[in-house]
Amino acid sequence: METGAVLPINGVELGVVQAHIRKADRYDFVVLTINEGASVGAVFTQNQFCAAPVRVCRLHQQRGQPRALIINTGCANAGTGEIGIGDAEHSCRALSQVLGINPQAVWPFSTGVIMEPLPMDRYLAAIPRACEVLREDAWSLAATAIMTTDLVPKVISRRFQCANHNVTITGMAKGSGMIHPNMATLLGFIATDAAIEPKFLQILTHRLADQSFNRITVDGDTSTNDSFVLIATGKSGLPVMDSEAAEGFGALWAGLLEVAVYLAQAIVKDGEGATKFITIQVQEGLSEAECLSVARSIAHSPLVKTAFFASDPNLGRILAAVGNAPVPNLDVNQVRLYLDDVLVAEQGGRAKLYQEADGQRVMAQQAMTIRLLLGRGESSATLWTCDLSYDYVRINADYRS
Amino acid sequence: METGAVLPINGVELGVVQAHIRKADRYDFVVLTINEGASVGAVFTQNQFCAAPVRVCRLHQQRGQPRALIINTGCANAGTGEIGIGDAEHSCRALSQVLGINPQAVWPFSTGVIMEPLPMDRYLAAIPRACEVLREDAWSLAATAIMTTDLVPKVISRRFQCANHNVTITGMAKGSGMIHPNMATLLGFIATDAAIEPKFLQILTHRLADQSFNRITVDGDTSTNDSFVLIATGKSGLPVMDSEAAEGFGALWAGLLEVAVYLAQAIVKDGEGATKFITIQVQEGLSEAECLSVARSIAHSPLVKTAFFASDPNLGRILAAVGNAPVPNLDVNQVRLYLDDVLVAEQGGRAKLYQEADGQRVMAQQAMTIRLLLGRGESSATLWTCDLSYDYVRINADYRS
Repeated sequence: METGAVLPINGVELGVVQAHIRKADRYDFVVLTINEGASVGAVFTQNQFCAAPVRVCRLHQQRGQPRALIINTGCANAGTGEIGIGDAEHSCRALSQVLGINPQAVWPFSTGVIMEPLPMDRYLAAIPRACEVLREDAWSLAATAIMTTDLVPKVISRRFQCANHNVTITGMAKGSGMIHPNMATLLGFIATDAAIEPKFLQILTHRLADQSFNRITVDGDTSTNDSFVLIATGKSGLPVMDSEAAEGFGALWAGLLEVAVYLAQAIVKDGEGATKFITIQVQEGLSEAECLSVARSIAHSPLVKTAFFASDPNLGRILAAVGNAPVPNLDVNQVRLYLDDVLVAEQGGRAKLYQEADGQRVMAQQAMTIRLLLGRGESSATLWTCDLSYDYVRINADYRS
Repeated sequence: METGAVLPINGVELGVVQAHIRKADRYDFVVLTINEGASVGAVFTQNQFCAAPVRVCRLHQQRGQPRALIINTGCANAGTGEIGIGDAEHSCRALSQVLGINPQAVWPFSTGVIMEPLPMDRYLAAIPRACEVLREDAWSLAATAIMTTDLVPKVISRRFQCANHNVTITGMAKGSGMIHPNMATLLGFIATDAAIEPKFLQILTHRLADQSFNRITVDGDTSTNDSFVLIATGKSGLPVMDSEAAEGFGALWAGLLEVAVYLAQAIVKDGEGATKFITIQVQEGLSEAECLSVARSIAHSPLVKTAFFASDPNLGRILAAVGNAPVPNLDVNQVRLYLDDVLVAEQGGRAKLYQEADGQRVMAQQAMTIRLLLGRGESSATLWTCDLSYDYVRINADYRS
């Protein structure tokens, strides 16, 4: 996808500074302000050991719309007990005083190492500095400032006509390891100047996460800090949308989906140590949930992932992974396996016309599609993942050093 | 555990040859004969893409007790469709003719590469050669002949007094990758000269697998070929046992458990690329199943496994894995995490007295115990696993070459 210029969103300003949370000489701290009257939806990790900022966000979400987000990398403030909750609340109070808003209108987000406390002296000192540099066109710098093991920032904009108004969407995300989102990715933020009624926006946020960030996996580990926020500032002049029947909704949804899927796929492509981008399509299942469970079984198999790293068409491992999926009464004789356009397996074994050279040709590509037809229904699901390489081990063995 | 001498089992003979199934110059083919009147229990993989030999074993198991097992490494005969079933049946017929027994009294076992057909010419030619060299004292050679990526053979014997009779148990197993047994390990065979009633033996086989092979995981991939066989030849002179109340049962069960747990742990220690042996004990759960699900969530986390490889006490990753376990309403403030004797986390965060140097000291060991107390019940469960190293990736990226 061509990403093009990163566009500001009327109503959103970002202040990005170096807070030295964990490392010197890098941007690692973002304050993002939202205009009064905007609607904000959000979904968070389902990990029960969820981080302190996630717990505080959930509380503040019940009190109404946020006016500011405060985001740091380097320390996840997860596994930090009551001290972590206190630190997150403290950071919200400090920012609210600078901005003159309610403390509960601030939502905190953290990412980085788990089970270490936030360095509150440096964190608090960064708040006024970030507020001094608030501006509309800092999305790219902010996308850099929220990275951990990410190699590239992930940010994208889309501008289009929607019911005779110009509408813009800009989003950023981070994530590279501990990626198996269950509600949202590690950190994802998308803003649009369309106007969306708050309850409808929250529904859209869930649906958007489910069709983008919840369809990726790097290592099957669901993070403690996953958060996805969708902001609608309402500054485009377009009337408020409150249902799928609203004028222009189709174009807006298509734009949101494009941005969210781009960011989700960008996370997989930047997966820790990833050298291959793998799309897994499971079709002809009894239900979407069944198809997803088969896709996840393939995507989580270390043996499948190392075979793709090696560009070795050792594709029996895919069949073994399918056999482990929690699908009752699967008739393996009905299953067909394609690698791109190559029919690899059918009738419980290798396809008659399959030649290893054909499998080898596809495996050598940087991107490929595993398509599995279950032969038992009409449902389907798609998941995106990457391979497992030496570098995944290196990165995660070295992460704290 | 001191393994000591490998002892023959009266009633069992093994013929081991080089069949050149996949590689030259290695033993890769075993015929194991069992005396008439012996009882044999067996459990097999729950992978729905189970291998042809597993499907044939299940059919033959319904027809009565086996008199011979035929085992090869180098080719798993899995994902081979109807041709694979035909090959497995053919091999049983061929061996039955040489031994003068019913074809359905032969059970076939294969391990190795998936989705490639058995080289039947070399396979069939090996059968009479193996039958010519049948002898009681070939367990160690057989343990070598069933290896794939295993670095060491896994074989052990125990001899003890049981109701005034000498009873012997000898077992062998193979397995290194694709190890997350669900019913049994890749291939495990244990024989004793005790006499056990067949239905009771089958119950014991399930129970024994559940407390040994089903408690290990290397990579979370359940194989297509997992099979575990327990043979009771009845040659010890001890009366037939048909319940737990039988005289001497306690000593026999203790011996069986010791042998099965030794073999299961040996598979983990020889896990592909493994450098650490990790025991995971989950205690104070509401049920054993709940404790096991938490233990599996920890054992399957690539982030936990790479941290152990690095000897880096990045122990927040364990909390994140616990938070992902499917345990409803877990109160993370009640959870306590120990690494050996070091209290690492409590009350949702780092323990007050925890020093990173203490964690570092334990992580530097070759073997350690992760002990997690859930603080919500009386149940517990133990699982054994290993770390995730560069070599796991290397071995599985290179396996077919």
